Amino acid sequence: MSETELNRRALLLTGCLIGGAAPAALAEGTASGQPAGPGRQVPARWLPVPDTVSPELAAVIAGPLAAGWDSRPTTAAAWKDLVAASVEAAAGDIAKIKATYGLRVSSDRIAGVSVFRIDPATPSPEAAGRVLMHLHGGGYVFFPGEAGAGEGMLMAALAGWPVISVDYRMPPDHPFPAALDDAMAVWRALAAQRDPGSIGVFGASAGGGLTLALMLAARDAGLPLPGAIAPGTPWADLTGAGDSLQANAFVDNVLVSPDGWSGAAALLYAAGRDLADPLISPLHGDFAGFPPAMLTSGTRDLLLSQTVRAHRRLRQAGVVAELQVYEGQSHAQFLEPFVPETEEAFREIGAFFARHLA
Amino acid sequence: MSETELNRRALLLTGCLIGGAAPAALAEGTASGQPAGPGRQVPARWLPVPDTVSPELAAVIAGPLAAGWDSRPTTAAAWKDLVAASVEAAAGDIAKIKATYGLRVSSDRIAGVSVFRIDPATPSPEAAGRVLMHLHGGGYVFFPGEAGAGEGMLMAALAGWPVISVDYRMPPDHPFPAALDDAMAVWRALAAQRDPGSIGVFGASAGGGLTLALMLAARDAGLPLPGAIAPGTPWADLTGAGDSLQANAFVDNVLVSPDGWSGAAALLYAAGRDLADPLISPLHGDFAGFPPAMLTSGTRDLLLSQTVRAHRRLRQAGVVAELQVYEGQSHAQFLEPFVPETEEAFREIGAFFARHLA
Repeated sequence: MSETELNRRALLLTGCLIGGAAPAALAEGTASGQPAGPGRQVPARWLPVPDTVSPELAAVIAGPLAAGWDSRPTTAAAWKDLVAASVEAAAGDIAKIKATYGLRVSSDRIAGVSVFRIDPATPSPEAAGRVLMHLHGGGYVFFPGEAGAGEGMLMAALAGWPVISVDYRMPPDHPFPAALDDAMAVWRALAAQRDPGSIGVFGASAGGGLTLALMLAARDAGLPLPGAIAPGTPWADLTGAGDSLQANAFVDNVLVSPDGWSGAAALLYAAGRDLADPLISPLHGDFAGFPPAMLTSGTRDLLLSQTVRAHRRLRQAGVVAELQVYEGQSHAQFLEPFVPETEEAFREIGAFFARHLA
Repeated sequence: MSETELNRRALLLTGCLIGGAAPAALAEGTASGQPAGPGRQVPARWLPVPDTVSPELAAVIAGPLAAGWDSRPTTAAAWKDLVAASVEAAAGDIAKIKATYGLRVSSDRIAGVSVFRIDPATPSPEAAGRVLMHLHGGGYVFFPGEAGAGEGMLMAALAGWPVISVDYRMPPDHPFPAALDDAMAVWRALAAQRDPGSIGVFGASAGGGLTLALMLAARDAGLPLPGAIAPGTPWADLTGAGDSLQANAFVDNVLVSPDGWSGAAALLYAAGRDLADPLISPLHGDFAGFPPAMLTSGTRDLLLSQTVRAHRRLRQAGVVAELQVYEGQSHAQFLEPFVPETEEAFREIGAFFARHLA
């Protein structure tokens, strides 16, 4: 090929800058160990820790791939061992967050569902007369009890909001729809006690997916909706669709790969139901009529695609929806405590609720 | 290591879902061919084309790496060959866009600078009494003349806005600050002719970086600022900083790698000046007082990090700033003509200007 022809083709392909022609043909996978269908081989490469983040976040990004990311328990007992480990692992941070920020945390029940009431030492004036309902993450299986309330504690601590964190039932004993039933029961009770528009609902990962599923279920049940929601990096499509699941595989050091525990947790949660059921994978539902939403993700997040797909679907439905993406962060790393970017993320979410709640 | 200890460590590391402890140690690069400093080896892998985009966009994503992505011309003559190829490559799309959408395009001069005036066949009612100034992309070297006006044509065609596209001078004959001087001259003239708040400024890649540099220069010169800006995937840090430059290397099929032509173009443009000069790399400047901004990128974009860093810096400065990220798109692929996601992106930008211009 001549130099000129090479250049011409180069510019045709970089021509998107002025609206270049789409390549004529798809690059098909070959039979040599590659999956069928179009795609491309990405070479191995060295991924440095960026210098465009705080030192605290750089230390998190520098962490190795999560040991055990590819755990795929096959028995209820093995899942329960992992669940117990999740509670143990969370305990230190939970204690440190409570102590550092002087939070008041008490357990309670609402409509028969276990919850934690979290009150900040210094409530934000913007939070007066308002409250946030928190749905925790952990793949719909990890972090039962107070272990799940950490994100709610950070919201109380960093943004000054009172939070009710829902300790919803989870598999292996209580698969879908137990978590959604519990979220609905608490929502129904809260919405009956006060102006629903004065309540916000938030949560990351499975908690973000559950937030979106709750909006579908409440809308379709004719219940009022909250004034605003903040699904963080929502696990909103358990079918495995979404480009960043592949593009950020082994770039994200938290979930690491869709072939890890999250795929097994999806099957555990669905318990034989269709993973594309909108109440399990709300990206397969219709977001019309949803309240204003703030979505949060990171550039390395395995669920970046689910986050931006949810953002786009909300905006296509005419919903006010804001997207925040943090430099270098893997899945849900905006929840890392004692990191400046975490303070920034929770201030953003708190300010969003302050702008939109009644 | 026991199973329980493995699980405990796994959950500690995935514990970000509840605020996990940061890993204690950095993974350091080794001497075996890896760069110094903390980081991680990412294995080779197959990257399929996602099924979560339109068929038209899937065909773009399925394109091979841009042939010649690693061209690094070392002489002015070699650069000019590439520049001529860029003009040739753009011609077909430019003609097709004009014809398809019935645009009126005329060349003119403002303050001595070559511009193209682009008028839509059917102006949007929201555009009445308003105008947009366009700064094109192409690494500050490609797409002189009408070849650079394609993005402006898409804005006129898809959002119904009248556009003035600036054909600013470029290297090798005219390095920095020629492009910025031309942008400033046109801005000064437009702002003197009409309410500056009724004018929006937009552009992608180098055009996004130049949009931000223009705000710095205009503010610091005491000029009024436009009513809103829309820097698309701004090339706003020519020093090579930013995580996605590495994380999305060989995932992005347009720019492909920071070791490609863009690094050479940065040096060509700066012509010996410090790449960290805020007027060359506006991410090194202060965004206080900037007008409302909408930023656009894609999940595979090599400049995703520059886009989200600019978004965060704007919000930290108290500026209204909205972020749009499109599923599966590489650098500036929201400019691909005749793709549904492109129509969506320009409708978003047009609506943003409609909300914020005087």
